[in-house]
Amino acid sequence: MALLCFQSLRMLRSGIRCMSQNAQLVSLTVNDKTGVATLSLQRPPVNSLNLELLTEISSALTEATDNNSRGLILTSTNDGVFSAGLDILEMYKPNLDRVKEFWTKLQETWIKLYQTAYPTVAVINGHSPAGGCLLALSCEHRIMVKNFTIGLNETRLGIVAPPWFIASMVNVIGQRQSERALTLGHMFTTEEAKNVGLIDEIVQNKAEGTTQAEAFIQKFAKIPFQARSLTKTWLRNKTVESLVKNREDDLNMFLQVVTQPNAQESLGHYIQSLKNKATK
Amino acid sequence: MALLCFQSLRMLRSGIRCMSQNAQLVSLTVNDKTGVATLSLQRPPVNSLNLELLTEISSALTEATDNNSRGLILTSTNDGVFSAGLDILEMYKPNLDRVKEFWTKLQETWIKLYQTAYPTVAVINGHSPAGGCLLALSCEHRIMVKNFTIGLNETRLGIVAPPWFIASMVNVIGQRQSERALTLGHMFTTEEAKNVGLIDEIVQNKAEGTTQAEAFIQKFAKIPFQARSLTKTWLRNKTVESLVKNREDDLNMFLQVVTQPNAQESLGHYIQSLKNKATK
Amino acid sequence: MALLCFQSLRMLRSGIRCMSQNAQLVSLTVNDKTGVATLSLQRPPVNSLNLELLTEISSALTEATDNNSRGLILTSTNDGVFSAGLDILEMYKPNLDRVKEFWTKLQETWIKLYQTAYPTVAVINGHSPAGGCLLALSCEHRIMVKNFTIGLNETRLGIVAPPWFIASMVNVIGQRQSERALTLGHMFTTEEAKNVGLIDEIVQNKAEGTTQAEAFIQKFAKIPFQARSLTKTWLRNKTVESLVKNREDDLNMFLQVVTQPNAQESLGHYIQSLKNKATK
Repeated sequence: MALLCFQSLRMLRSGIRCMSQNAQLVSLTVNDKTGVATLSLQRPPVNSLNLELLTEISSALTEATDNNSRGLILTSTNDGVFSAGLDILEMYKPNLDRVKEFWTKLQETWIKLYQTAYPTVAVINGHSPAGGCLLALSCEHRIMVKNFTIGLNETRLGIVAPPWFIASMVNVIGQRQSERALTLGHMFTTEEAKNVGLIDEIVQNKAEGTTQAEAFIQKFAKIPFQARSLTKTWLRNKTVESLVKNREDDLNMFLQVVTQPNAQESLGHYIQSLKNKATK
Repeated sequence: MALLCFQSLRMLRSGIRCMSQNAQLVSLTVNDKTGVATLSLQRPPVNSLNLELLTEISSALTEATDNNSRGLILTSTNDGVFSAGLDILEMYKPNLDRVKEFWTKLQETWIKLYQTAYPTVAVINGHSPAGGCLLALSCEHRIMVKNFTIGLNETRLGIVAPPWFIASMVNVIGQRQSERALTLGHMFTTEEAKNVGLIDEIVQNKAEGTTQAEAFIQKFAKIPFQARSLTKTWLRNKTVESLVKNREDDLNMFLQVVTQPNAQESLGHYIQSLKNKATK
Repeated sequence: MALLCFQSLRMLRSGIRCMSQNAQLVSLTVNDKTGVATLSLQRPPVNSLNLELLTEISSALTEATDNNSRGLILTSTNDGVFSAGLDILEMYKPNLDRVKEFWTKLQETWIKLYQTAYPTVAVINGHSPAGGCLLALSCEHRIMVKNFTIGLNETRLGIVAPPWFIASMVNVIGQRQSERALTLGHMFTTEEAKNVGLIDEIVQNKAEGTTQAEAFIQKFAKIPFQARSLTKTWLRNKTVESLVKNREDDLNMFLQVVTQPNAQESLGHYIQSLKNKATK
C-alpha cells in the first residue's frame, strides 16, 4: 500500500487515478483521459508469481473490466525484471492443498488475461522467463526494453511448460520456432525476440515503452468495442477452450510432473544456486 | 446480359467462349486453348455481394466444374473495386427469411470456392474489403494491382468476421498477423499485403494480372488433376468441415451478432456516410 | 552386413561402436564419447523405402532408445540420394497382404520417429523426394548439402501425400507454403528449402553436416532429458494422435487412392521412365 499512497498526490495531478485500493503486490492505475489502465507487478524482488500475486493480478483484470477500461498495460515496477515466472517455492516440496490452489489460480489468471475484452499490451521492462513470458504472450502486443531476455525456459529447470503455455507461444511465433525454443528452453535476447516475432517493438526504456503502448491502444479508439472483443474471442477461443474443458486433467498432469523426484531435484539445485548467488 | 452479348463477337475471334448464358451479375468465359475459365464480378457499382450475386457466383463455380475447366480466374469488371464485400443492405434492418437465405448462400459459395478441384487465382484489380477479401483468400493464389487495399475490416463497421472468415485468413498469414489485422479491421495496401503474405504477386494492371494468373494455372498442366485436387481437399478439409458441421449454429450466431442494436446502429451510420459521399 | 564388418576396425579405433548387428539395409552406430547414434540408410541404389528397409529403420529407432542414445543423426550412405521415398514397387500392382503390411510399417516408423525422446537431426546428403522428405521433416533439425532437392512431390506421380505427411510439412513451413508446395508437388532446391524454412542449415558436404548435427545435439547436453522429451511430446502429440486414432482408416484411404486406375497408370509410366533412364 505504501507505494500507492505515496504516489497518489502526483497521480491525481496528472489525471492518473489509483484503482486497486486493497492491492499490495500489484498497482492498478487508470489514466482518466484515455481510459487506459496500467497494471504494475510489484512483488519484490523479482515479481515471482505465487498464489497471492496471481490472486491480485486476477482481481485487477476483473477490476479493469468493471471500470470499463479502454485497454490495459501490463508492466513491472522493477526496471530489470518483468517477472521471474512461477514462484519456485510454490512447486518445491509443495503442500498439496496450497499447490492445487496455486495452479488453479494460475489457470484462472491466464484464461482471464488471454481473452480480456479490452486490448492488452505488455511493456516488458526486464527479464521475462517462464511464467513471465506467458503473461507477455497472453497480451495482444509486446513492447520490450533492449538488453533483456525472454522465453519459456522450463526445460532448463527440469520442468515442462504445460500445453497452454505452449499454445500461447505457438499462436505468436508458430509451431516450428516454438519447438526449437521450447525443447531447448531458449531465452531470446530482445533482438532475437523481435526477429522471430516473439515481441513487436524494441524500446530504449520503460517510459518510451509506455508511450508506445498508449499509442497501440489508441488505434482502437474508433473501433466499436463489442465487435473488437468478439473478434478476439473467436480468434482465441479454441486455445482457451482446450484448457477450460480440461482444467482438472491439467492440474493433475502438473502435479504429476512437478512432484517427480527428477523435477524436485532440479528445482532444489536451482533454489540452491539462487541462494549461492544471493550470498555472494 | 447486355455486356455478355456485346462482347461475344470479339471473344469468339480470340478463342474465348461465353459459358454462363443466364448470368447477369457475373460473366463466365473460358479460354478454349487453355481450358482456363474467367469469372468476372459485374454488379455495379462495387460488386456488393447480395443474394443474387452470390447465387450467380455459386452457379458459375459449378459450371466451371461441369465444363472440366483446368483453372479459374476470379476478377472484377470494375477496375477500381474487386468487391466491396457483403451487401450491407442485406444486413441492415433485415427481413428474416431473406437474410437467412443470404447467409446460407454465402456459406455455400465459400464452401464451394474453398475446395474447387481446379486451381483458383484471384486477380484483385481494385479495393477488396471484408467479403471481397474473403473471396480472394479462398483462392489458391492472389495477384493484386498496385495502389489498392484489402482486408477483413468488419470490426470497423461494428460487425464481426465469422470464424470461417478468420480461418481463411489464418491459413494464409498465420494466427499472429491475423489477430493484429482482424482486431483492428486493418486494410492492407497492396505493398503491405505482399509483405505479410496476404497476396502473392503485385502487378501494374489487370491485363498483367491475367497473364500472371494464366501462368500460375499453367504450372499445373502436367500435374495429374485428380491427385492435385485430393491434395487440396486434404489440406483444406479441416477448415471446411468446421463450417459444414455447424452451418445452422453459424447462421444463428450471425443473426444474433448482426441484429444487435449496436451493430444495426453502426451499419446505419455507415450507409448514411456512403449516401453523403454519393451526393457530394 | 559386409559394410558393417568392413568398417568395424576403423570404427572401434575412433570410439564409434556398431549397434545394429542384424541390420543389412541400415547401419546404426553410436559415438561412445557423445552418446549420439547415427542411423545410415544403405539400401542401394537410392534407399527406396520398402517394407524391409522400414522394418530396419523402425527397429533401429527402438534400439537407439534402448541404448540411451543422447541423440540421433539420420543420413544416407549414398552421397547423392538421402532417400528416393516410398518404393514404388510396393505400390504398383500390389499384393494386398504385402501392401497392407508395408503401409502399417510406414505408419509405425513415422509415429516412432516423430516422437523419439532423444533429439533427431537429418543430415540430408542427397535428393530427398516424397517419403525421403517425410523422414527429414520428422526430425527436429534439418541440415542439407547444397545442390540437391527436397519436397513432397507425390502429386507429380499421380498419388497423394496422406494427411500426416501434410501435417508434418505444415508443422515446419506453415499452411500457406505447404499448400503451394504440395498441390504442385514442388521439389525445393537446397537454397529454396532454406529460404522457406524447410531446412535449417546448408552445408558443403556430409562431413560438415555431421559436425553441425553433433553440435545441434550437444546443445541439449545440459537440458534434463525427461523434461525435454515431454515438451516434445506435448508439442507433437496432436499431430501424432490424428494418425494413431485412425490408422485403419488411413490404411484404407491409402489403398483406395493407390489402387485407382489413374494412379496405377501414373506409377506405371514412372517406372517405365526410370527403366528407360537406367538403360541409357
